[in-house]
Amino acid sequence: MAEPESKRLKTEDAPYELIYWPGLPGRGELIRLLFVEAGVPFTDRSKDPGEAVGLVTGLMSDNGDDANPPAFAVPALRHGDLLISQTANILLYLAPKLGLGPSEGNGVYHLNSIALTLIDGFVNEIHETHHPIATSQYYADQKEEAKKRSKAYTSERIPRFLQYAQRVIDAKTSGDGPWLYGGKLTYVDLVLFQCIHGTKYAFPKAMEEMEKSGKYDGVFALFKAVQERPNIKEYMASDKRCSYGDGIWRYYPELEEE
Amino acid sequence: MAEPESKRLKTEDAPYELIYWPGLPGRGELIRLLFVEAGVPFTDRSKDPGEAVGLVTGLMSDNGDDANPPAFAVPALRHGDLLISQTANILLYLAPKLGLGPSEGNGVYHLNSIALTLIDGFVNEIHETHHPIATSQYYADQKEEAKKRSKAYTSERIPRFLQYAQRVIDAKTSGDGPWLYGGKLTYVDLVLFQCIHGTKYAFPKAMEEMEKSGKYDGVFALFKAVQERPNIKEYMASDKRCSYGDGIWRYYPELEEE
Repeated sequence: MAEPESKRLKTEDAPYELIYWPGLPGRGELIRLLFVEAGVPFTDRSKDPGEAVGLVTGLMSDNGDDANPPAFAVPALRHGDLLISQTANILLYLAPKLGLGPSEGNGVYHLNSIALTLIDGFVNEIHETHHPIATSQYYADQKEEAKKRSKAYTSERIPRFLQYAQRVIDAKTSGDGPWLYGGKLTYVDLVLFQCIHGTKYAFPKAMEEMEKSGKYDGVFALFKAVQERPNIKEYMASDKRCSYGDGIWRYYPELEEE
Repeated sequence: MAEPESKRLKTEDAPYELIYWPGLPGRGELIRLLFVEAGVPFTDRSKDPGEAVGLVTGLMSDNGDDANPPAFAVPALRHGDLLISQTANILLYLAPKLGLGPSEGNGVYHLNSIALTLIDGFVNEIHETHHPIATSQYYADQKEEAKKRSKAYTSERIPRFLQYAQRVIDAKTSGDGPWLYGGKLTYVDLVLFQCIHGTKYAFPKAMEEMEKSGKYDGVFALFKAVQERPNIKEYMASDKRCSYGDGIWRYYPELEEE
């Protein structure tokens, strides 16, 4: 029997639930950092590994529910009756609610374009560096191709995406301070922070070279500014932050060899 | 000198301008189809090849303007003072203005997640099939890797994304009729149409097999329903529709060989 209307939580009062694979930062981290920075509690359903895997595989095979279409993959966010997937889409939904982006106007679309571009460059393309042939096959079986892809990624794509981020910082629309847009911290700064953090882990030599080049000083200054935010700093040092492993950002030293 | 305020067009009255590479459907086609279906005029700045290349390369290297951050890539849309990039972002902006999606509420995020997933599966991953190592290198120099990637794509990824689209159609949230969401045609149906059209061109054997399997009848029925929309039908038969070529959807017969 359905609960009486009066006992149901309105969506705006409902808790936020993140559904994701257990034990990895992954795309879920791009969502978690918003809650951390905003100091808003959420239920992280990835924390109990047994439950998390069932939730994820269930979502990826069901046909949605009365109110929501099905998801292809996680992260997914549940908020009251609403269930949504796709990282950039979840960020778009959460940002105004958490005070990390505007709720209307041109800024919504400007920030969404920045988020989508950073995710393309430092999340989706990073995954391709270790799985250029097939996600379903072992890394060991595509290592030679991964070396070629990584060489192109570190020599061409990393500089190109860093240059893009630097251009956004250099643009008039970035305003004052180290931030990407509008003179204050928004969710895309948190996205860039995680992108740089993960890419430093996966390709430390390449990223050290990029930092030393002096061409992207604004990007690395922004990274440090986010790192020093009190809530972020506390979180990154805590055991709530997962270590990297066999996820999107992986460290295979052979992918940086000449 | 700036024009006086009174002489400037308000954004809502301003013409729409699409900025894209010339001579290819590409990601630009996902934008064009919305204008075609809605019967709303737009200026397609890809049509004059000389001008188009200059516009695109200019956008990809400048630092934005007073009102807009820079773009990483095209398609880009100009509407009055606003300039935005990223395909799914442009669709999100246009859909409510062209009557092809809601302007607020949960449907905005449901449709955006469907659009992002279809673009991942049938646009971004298709490009990887012929360029699994580096976008900057010739296809001929990565043909062996492209064969491996294409085999995994046609045998694993096409079925998985088709199954996702079929699940969305089978979900309660699709409502009546052939459509993906809410019982009426929305922009994500146009996205699915172009995705299937392009994938049929690139991998005709695989897609014929998928169609014959009977597992995705809803997807192919939706494709045909969009194909029969009067404005779409007229457009597809006209010389306004570009032919495929060396873009995202390419036909290399060797990528379908066993």
